[in-house]
Amino acid sequence: MVIVMAPGATDAQIDAVITRVTTAGGEAFVSRGDTRTIVGLVGDVDKFHGLNLRTLPGVAEVVRISTPFKLVSRQHHPDMSTVYVGETRVPIGPDTFTLIAGPCAVETPEQTLEAAQMALAAGATLLRGGAFKPRSSPYAFQGLGERGLQILADVRAETGLPVVTEVVDVADVELVASYADMLQIGTRNAQNFTLLQAVGDIGKPVMLKRGMSSTIEEWLMAAEYIAQRGNLDIVLCERGIRTFEKATRNTLDIAAVPVAHDLSHLPIVVDPSHSGGRRDLVVPLSRAAIAVGADGIIVDVHPHPESALCDGPQALVDSDLRALATAVRQLAPLSDRRPAAPLGR
Amino acid sequence: MVIVMAPGATDAQIDAVITRVTTAGGEAFVSRGDTRTIVGLVGDVDKFHGLNLRTLPGVAEVVRISTPFKLVSRQHHPDMSTVYVGETRVPIGPDTFTLIAGPCAVETPEQTLEAAQMALAAGATLLRGGAFKPRSSPYAFQGLGERGLQILADVRAETGLPVVTEVVDVADVELVASYADMLQIGTRNAQNFTLLQAVGDIGKPVMLKRGMSSTIEEWLMAAEYIAQRGNLDIVLCERGIRTFEKATRNTLDIAAVPVAHDLSHLPIVVDPSHSGGRRDLVVPLSRAAIAVGADGIIVDVHPHPESALCDGPQALVDSDLRALATAVRQLAPLSDRRPAAPLGR
Amino acid sequence: MVIVMAPGATDAQIDAVITRVTTAGGEAFVSRGDTRTIVGLVGDVDKFHGLNLRTLPGVAEVVRISTPFKLVSRQHHPDMSTVYVGETRVPIGPDTFTLIAGPCAVETPEQTLEAAQMALAAGATLLRGGAFKPRSSPYAFQGLGERGLQILADVRAETGLPVVTEVVDVADVELVASYADMLQIGTRNAQNFTLLQAVGDIGKPVMLKRGMSSTIEEWLMAAEYIAQRGNLDIVLCERGIRTFEKATRNTLDIAAVPVAHDLSHLPIVVDPSHSGGRRDLVVPLSRAAIAVGADGIIVDVHPHPESALCDGPQALVDSDLRALATAVRQLAPLSDRRPAAPLGR
Amino acid sequence: MVIVMAPGATDAQIDAVITRVTTAGGEAFVSRGDTRTIVGLVGDVDKFHGLNLRTLPGVAEVVRISTPFKLVSRQHHPDMSTVYVGETRVPIGPDTFTLIAGPCAVETPEQTLEAAQMALAAGATLLRGGAFKPRSSPYAFQGLGERGLQILADVRAETGLPVVTEVVDVADVELVASYADMLQIGTRNAQNFTLLQAVGDIGKPVMLKRGMSSTIEEWLMAAEYIAQRGNLDIVLCERGIRTFEKATRNTLDIAAVPVAHDLSHLPIVVDPSHSGGRRDLVVPLSRAAIAVGADGIIVDVHPHPESALCDGPQALVDSDLRALATAVRQLAPLSDRRPAAPLGR
Repeated sequence: MVIVMAPGATDAQIDAVITRVTTAGGEAFVSRGDTRTIVGLVGDVDKFHGLNLRTLPGVAEVVRISTPFKLVSRQHHPDMSTVYVGETRVPIGPDTFTLIAGPCAVETPEQTLEAAQMALAAGATLLRGGAFKPRSSPYAFQGLGERGLQILADVRAETGLPVVTEVVDVADVELVASYADMLQIGTRNAQNFTLLQAVGDIGKPVMLKRGMSSTIEEWLMAAEYIAQRGNLDIVLCERGIRTFEKATRNTLDIAAVPVAHDLSHLPIVVDPSHSGGRRDLVVPLSRAAIAVGADGIIVDVHPHPESALCDGPQALVDSDLRALATAVRQLAPLSDRRPAAPLGR
Repeated sequence: MVIVMAPGATDAQIDAVITRVTTAGGEAFVSRGDTRTIVGLVGDVDKFHGLNLRTLPGVAEVVRISTPFKLVSRQHHPDMSTVYVGETRVPIGPDTFTLIAGPCAVETPEQTLEAAQMALAAGATLLRGGAFKPRSSPYAFQGLGERGLQILADVRAETGLPVVTEVVDVADVELVASYADMLQIGTRNAQNFTLLQAVGDIGKPVMLKRGMSSTIEEWLMAAEYIAQRGNLDIVLCERGIRTFEKATRNTLDIAAVPVAHDLSHLPIVVDPSHSGGRRDLVVPLSRAAIAVGADGIIVDVHPHPESALCDGPQALVDSDLRALATAVRQLAPLSDRRPAAPLGR
Repeated sequence: MVIVMAPGATDAQIDAVITRVTTAGGEAFVSRGDTRTIVGLVGDVDKFHGLNLRTLPGVAEVVRISTPFKLVSRQHHPDMSTVYVGETRVPIGPDTFTLIAGPCAVETPEQTLEAAQMALAAGATLLRGGAFKPRSSPYAFQGLGERGLQILADVRAETGLPVVTEVVDVADVELVASYADMLQIGTRNAQNFTLLQAVGDIGKPVMLKRGMSSTIEEWLMAAEYIAQRGNLDIVLCERGIRTFEKATRNTLDIAAVPVAHDLSHLPIVVDPSHSGGRRDLVVPLSRAAIAVGADGIIVDVHPHPESALCDGPQALVDSDLRALATAVRQLAPLSDRRPAAPLGR
Repeated sequence: MVIVMAPGATDAQIDAVITRVTTAGGEAFVSRGDTRTIVGLVGDVDKFHGLNLRTLPGVAEVVRISTPFKLVSRQHHPDMSTVYVGETRVPIGPDTFTLIAGPCAVETPEQTLEAAQMALAAGATLLRGGAFKPRSSPYAFQGLGERGLQILADVRAETGLPVVTEVVDVADVELVASYADMLQIGTRNAQNFTLLQAVGDIGKPVMLKRGMSSTIEEWLMAAEYIAQRGNLDIVLCERGIRTFEKATRNTLDIAAVPVAHDLSHLPIVVDPSHSGGRRDLVVPLSRAAIAVGADGIIVDVHPHPESALCDGPQALVDSDLRALATAVRQLAPLSDRRPAAPLGR
């Protein structure tokens, strides 16, 4: 941590900073320049944060140097992690490329099964599907709730695909975890810290979507909330951020993949469906995601997009899925990855 | 709602749109241009949303015309609402200007009482203070929880100031409501829909902060979630949005005040402390808020900012509070408002 | 300047940094922490920038401490500047509030004169009007060019109002300066550095609009380009930045006024017309601008907005202008300012 | 174009809209809903824009339907264009993948030649290099000017690589065009319309960088300015947009490639160096660009990044270039592209 003093800071003000730091057990190194003095701090950064140095007279700025996350940081954990999902242990990690597919929302047993079969045919090894749907409007379809979870479990029994599904309320975490193989935290709950702690406690793998206005650092701090409860089975999911551009629903931050890989040992997948919000962009963005080094993608599929209750305009249909399967087959090996297959129990 | 057909849309595709609309009980008016055809829909817009018209072949775009919120809209409720807080019924509404002040976080009984007395002296009629603090880092101070609520209640008994405090978890709503006079929904929970519904159910006044990346429309949709549960005692709070500018913590969207007043009958207050994140900006931004027509402001005060456990750098001290009191006294009348006073039971 | 070494940086890498700095005549202070080492530099910062320290092995980050602008900085020039415009020396500065008004685009002599008379009646002491109009579409009205300048000069002769008008091309700077009293640099040219240098050379007062995606620091650097050519008669103009919010054309960054006043001695005015893009927002935003401490505002007026060739929807009409005049009269004195009047030659 | 009337619009107001439209030779189709009436316009859209319909009483909104660009639109030009650069006619278009590489700034003949040889070895067929450098600070290195152009021409003679270089001032367009094979418009000049017109007039191929806060539509409108002068040899360059994320210099909008390809027949290349601003991101982002379907990339290389006068931290060195060459060789064929080779005169 570095303390930058204001141009006119007095010696007494500089001394006050030093005293407060050393009293707390830290060391302070002073560099006096012509117009400004800076003080470098060495010691326990977390303790320094509690010192409120920025409010001391004469202090212009406090510059943090070290990253604020620990358990999810790559600094003390240089090897990339692999997260295994479901009884069949489908891997998401550095050696594989995992295709996760399914309907945005579970509507009926038939629609869900059909979507799962489409997903399977395209090479997916995990099934996504929403039973609890957070919607901007209270008048929009909010999901089938527990009945949707039951349908997902039935389709898993039929197809063998482990299930990823969203949880939106702390009160539902146990219920959702009793059906699902992986819990998803959506973009609107990216900083719902009590929910993050609850999925940390439950111990199942978690897919953590980036908040639509979260920096990469804040996203990793959200992961740290989960990790701190003893659950390190976390997969990050880049799903686009909010910008001024209107041609797409969100702006896919493709650079977030290598940046997060550099900062954290957690796997990261990309959601090309919700970032673009347009069916014609899903395959190109998926190709970009594979090539940039993502550990997987998660896409919407629907047997009849024109009657979908949620996000029909972005759902893939059969021909798209064939293009997607080809992309995975051709591009993943060039990133030194094999398509992810269940390892079995 | 207007359906814009793609340039090469066929007559059959246009007919398919018309059929789907009329089957659902709507009317469709067709305007055929040289390069494009547009179809204007008349009827029940909510029903049209369920038709998935955007996924039909030949459809390029679906343009929504009417606003998606109803209960909080000014369209059928042209008079501005007043929300009354606490047993003494402190108003927030079109005729008054309400100063809400207090510590960012409740730390000790002494600090909270001292802050409340500073607030009172400056003319505040509501006390803010956080017992549950959502923090980006799991390693930061998270608030005192119920003990903080008790302190707030004690200070209310001592000073007479009704209490505004944040709730972050559905499971805590009843607890917080049993102590507080007004529940605050923070920016990170602006789209935590189950929490919005829960505070809607509990029936106490709610202060709804804008999400840091919420559009004004999304913010009003969040209010609609509360209203739909029968609770219309909602006060909007503009607290800055996230942009590329780094000199301030967030960018205060001052235009949101007249824009929201135009769209909704709900009162709106401004938070100059969290938007700027700098003590020297609080008074200027408060002045702007009064002059632009806000119904109140909510500010951080702390008797000893240099030892504050949360957001010390933005807390006002005594001299700032005098400047703030002067601003309210001078500027509010020029916006045809009187300082808000308790009406008594 | 502070050099942050990467966690695993070797002593040799740290020494290489020190050597490069001391060879260039600087001093380097080393703070060795448990996980990282930081090196504080003292000396000529501009020289350090040329050293490319960020590319040296083992360097994680280079943190700049001092501000990169000098001539426009308040650091060595604590008193606020006043810029005087026109033969009658209309002031823009700390003691006055200056109302600048006129048509977005000059269309005809009659329209311009009528707009100027509306402006005068509202208390304006400077006339704005565009002869060269940068438009997003090449098919939109681009202004009357020199004929528009002539009209402005004629209206100045008739009304006595000095003229502010935009210049968009280096080749036109002399021409525009021969007619105008103040040259405006528009938001799209905020980083057109050759144009900035050219208006610096010509020596007339300049109104520098903020780029729609410029940070406040970049804006002040743009001003530095003008200042470096010996022209310090610069007025900053905040006109809104680009964000995700769609209800307004741009988001007025009202905090930019006190932030820029803190960093720079240059006056700053606010453009409530182009930031909001809506007539109904102009008066509220103007009120906010006066109350926050701006040195003036610049607004669009048009005698017949419904036939305006440019930005009619945001032009003020007579009744708005009366409300604006009232706002200036009532609010400016509360910011210790008097309405700006010509000082005479 | 669709006119949305306000909820309470009167019949007289609706009639006034219709009259204005039909007087101008258009047709108006009226759809009367329960709460709102909409009017669909058919006819010459450009003429409608001049009617100022948004300022008429009772009009709530004017929704544009057709795209505002024509010459660069794919609507009447469904086949993708190929732009040929230099005497040897290096193609940038739908069948090829073009690698453009070179130093950010031309510093010396040796450095430029060495960089060009690195570029050649990696498979580049066009040389980039800046002689006029727009820099945020007036105190930063601004480029060698004409001497830099001469060096680029000498290196072209030596290596056979056609030259792409930036022009920042209308006054320099002829000079730069006399040396260069392709003129680059930088991000800060993306809406410098007189410069766009000047490079349109000169008739040489143009690389048009996206403005850092330009929407895709505005970027295509900027291209329309060039095209309108008779020059359709335009290559779009996506170089990242400005967002709140701080880990990268800009946020590469990878979806802009398929979106722009959908809207326009112009080729589009990606700049992974300036978007990320970090050397370690250049190869991953290049891989994403190839896979998403870009027509080429433009990257910074430098023989000695640690002494570069501009943007050293993002310049590729030899080992990166080998990885980049591998990526082009492996990935481009999977997008049905061959590496671009000169066609000869």
